[in-house]
Amino acid sequence: MTKRIAILGAGPSGLAQLRAFQSAKEKGEDIPEIVCFEKQDDWGGLWNYTWRTGVDQYGEPVHGSMYRYLWSNGPKEGLEFADYSFEEHFGKQIASYPPRAVLMDYIEGRVKKAGVRDWIRFETAVRRVEKNDNGKFNVTVCNLPKDDEYTEEFDHVICATGHFSTPNVPQFDGFDKFKGRILHAHDFRDALEFKDQDLLIIGTSYSAEDIGSQCWKYGAKSITVSHRTAPMGFKWPDNWQEVPLLTHVDGNTAYFKDGTSKDVDAILLCTGYQHHFPFMADNLRLRTANRLATSDLYKGVAWVHDPDLFYLGMQDQWFTFNMFDAQAWWVRDAIMGKIKIPGKSEMEADVADRIAREDAGEDDYQAIQYQADYIKELIAETDYPSFNVDGACEAFFEWKKHKKEDIMTFRNNSYTSVITNTKAPKHHTPWKDALDDSLEVYLQN
Amino acid sequence: MTKRIAILGAGPSGLAQLRAFQSAKEKGEDIPEIVCFEKQDDWGGLWNYTWRTGVDQYGEPVHGSMYRYLWSNGPKEGLEFADYSFEEHFGKQIASYPPRAVLMDYIEGRVKKAGVRDWIRFETAVRRVEKNDNGKFNVTVCNLPKDDEYTEEFDHVICATGHFSTPNVPQFDGFDKFKGRILHAHDFRDALEFKDQDLLIIGTSYSAEDIGSQCWKYGAKSITVSHRTAPMGFKWPDNWQEVPLLTHVDGNTAYFKDGTSKDVDAILLCTGYQHHFPFMADNLRLRTANRLATSDLYKGVAWVHDPDLFYLGMQDQWFTFNMFDAQAWWVRDAIMGKIKIPGKSEMEADVADRIAREDAGEDDYQAIQYQADYIKELIAETDYPSFNVDGACEAFFEWKKHKKEDIMTFRNNSYTSVITNTKAPKHHTPWKDALDDSLEVYLQN
Repeated sequence: MTKRIAILGAGPSGLAQLRAFQSAKEKGEDIPEIVCFEKQDDWGGLWNYTWRTGVDQYGEPVHGSMYRYLWSNGPKEGLEFADYSFEEHFGKQIASYPPRAVLMDYIEGRVKKAGVRDWIRFETAVRRVEKNDNGKFNVTVCNLPKDDEYTEEFDHVICATGHFSTPNVPQFDGFDKFKGRILHAHDFRDALEFKDQDLLIIGTSYSAEDIGSQCWKYGAKSITVSHRTAPMGFKWPDNWQEVPLLTHVDGNTAYFKDGTSKDVDAILLCTGYQHHFPFMADNLRLRTANRLATSDLYKGVAWVHDPDLFYLGMQDQWFTFNMFDAQAWWVRDAIMGKIKIPGKSEMEADVADRIAREDAGEDDYQAIQYQADYIKELIAETDYPSFNVDGACEAFFEWKKHKKEDIMTFRNNSYTSVITNTKAPKHHTPWKDALDDSLEVYLQN
Repeated sequence: MTKRIAILGAGPSGLAQLRAFQSAKEKGEDIPEIVCFEKQDDWGGLWNYTWRTGVDQYGEPVHGSMYRYLWSNGPKEGLEFADYSFEEHFGKQIASYPPRAVLMDYIEGRVKKAGVRDWIRFETAVRRVEKNDNGKFNVTVCNLPKDDEYTEEFDHVICATGHFSTPNVPQFDGFDKFKGRILHAHDFRDALEFKDQDLLIIGTSYSAEDIGSQCWKYGAKSITVSHRTAPMGFKWPDNWQEVPLLTHVDGNTAYFKDGTSKDVDAILLCTGYQHHFPFMADNLRLRTANRLATSDLYKGVAWVHDPDLFYLGMQDQWFTFNMFDAQAWWVRDAIMGKIKIPGKSEMEADVADRIAREDAGEDDYQAIQYQADYIKELIAETDYPSFNVDGACEAFFEWKKHKKEDIMTFRNNSYTSVITNTKAPKHHTPWKDALDDSLEVYLQN
């Protein structure tokens, strides 16, 4: 009997998994029956922009953390699909830091070409995944528009629901009486909401850096970024300051660890995200820090306690789309019996080794190389098109250098594709002056 | 063997249920084992204010819809507990429209006195309720701080999770490109966030009326309220207008059905709430409109398809705390065998009759009387202290008259308690000038 595979989520990871199976089918292989469950009404995951925050029209927590005017914060040359280049999609080479709509169009292009949309049950939320008495998975889902819950049995489950959707939201003293808006980056939608405001940002990772930059670009009065450990240390504009950790707020005044204070209109928590899988039974639920070597995942994907279950894309990420591809092809081949999954002790040793190697790394450059090596390891075991992963690392190294030179101009640079070996054109407008982030305007090169 | 009862939620309804059982115990009766599961870290349900919006620190949807500066929008004489008066709690009679902190203190007072806090497992989210092969309920919950999921068996489940927590959030054309903030009333926290802003409110029910009034009181530049069916029709201040339904937004401009338009800074959706029980198995899940006579609940509480399951407080509400009490005492006695639940056809006839009687009502006055009669019906079957329910109706009738006279002054009126027969004092400060809504200030009479 044909195996049945449940893929949870139709974002970049889930779509990579659909494409992986479809590419095998295209080559004449006999693939399992695939059912992909997607909560939203369209594919793309985080890249499917929504104005909604909080919960959606069906009372489900909103998946999207995407905001308007987002441009890629890393070069597209570091994430290009090996089987579907930007040039193939757009008919020409394009500049290196595309806005959201351009990347969404690219992601969609590959799966439209693959013809896998029918494999997805949209507006269907996963309520419960558990092992049943037959040793298979009961997957209980709800068709949201029909409010119809049902359970189906699957041989394998591939959880690809992402980990940038459930915010990590700390509390600080005085938040309950702050006379302004407090929100997490997950609920940030439009920088214009903060025009002419004094904005306090807590956190120093990508959300802080990028949302702060967006708000600066769209006219915030001032940006104050509070750090727990160390400032980001970029060369910020004059109306931007970095301060130590917030201790408390009183009225509209924020107080910091060094005794300084600042009156602010809004507080934006850029304090990261949680791996959150409330629908997975306790014995199937991944619990991991956000790191390159996740807990409990053999080869970064197979659940060591029951390798009929896989998790995709649960790593902290330098590489994104191309890493999801490497994982999806590997998982496909494990399910189709081309790759043998070893016993539990060997899987656990693999996890321990990955963690030790990540821990031995000393800086971001080594972390990038570590993840590049992971991708190379996976694609060597499948028929995913080989590509110059080290070349993609070079784009990341350049990117880091350009950010250090000037955080407000790094997106004006361009890099060389390791898929088509063509150099991206310089974008027609400096990022800080490009207020229209539409696909049409971006492609006017 | 002692029956085990699961109460879901420790808000006003769940706490009423705890108090109902405790009052029987106090009288020397042998009560079942009670376990109350509460997602939040404290009791009070909606009255437990949180600054949080979206999802909480554990990734669970935030329960709270409560906002700062909220004062009761109906007279306290319409909701007073028959077994615990305002005078007993505060040691004196207090004014008729208490702010949130005062009502929270009152709700807490009764259950502190009852000593039922130990019956509650806080920070414990219900993941799943289903009937098992023994004909009992498996209730699967997650201890959130420990991330520990477990299942226990219960003879009865009483769902008291409320229905003003999951917003109903419609979409209008142009929302995805609106250059400002769009939020549902559920995420409204502080009127000062809208100071000096032009605010568009969609909806005409209590949230629209009250949040609009709060924002007006705390300095919004203008309030525009858009209605689908009819305007609220109160005598609004000069910077307040009522307009037909929104058709679309373009940039910051909102367009209405009559062809008029208005530039606005923010859009607030006061579009109601959903009955949302994603944790209930499909065959146990209440599906009802927000009305006085709910679907599928015998006597408004017993699930006609399986009367081992009860729902509390799922009605649209004129009466609140005292109605939850009437229900909780009734459910207690049904569980303890003092009240006999009839067969399914009789239960269904009861539901049909309630619906027909509600539908026959012609105005709000009849609706208030309908709900008063429902309360009288339930308390006649239990030992809940009898009180003058019709007298409480009179307070509601007066309240409606006072609102009609002046929507911005109705809270300056006072009414007579039907529990202690004392008249509330006039509050020391007109509502519109009382910017400090703390308990300490409110009680300075």
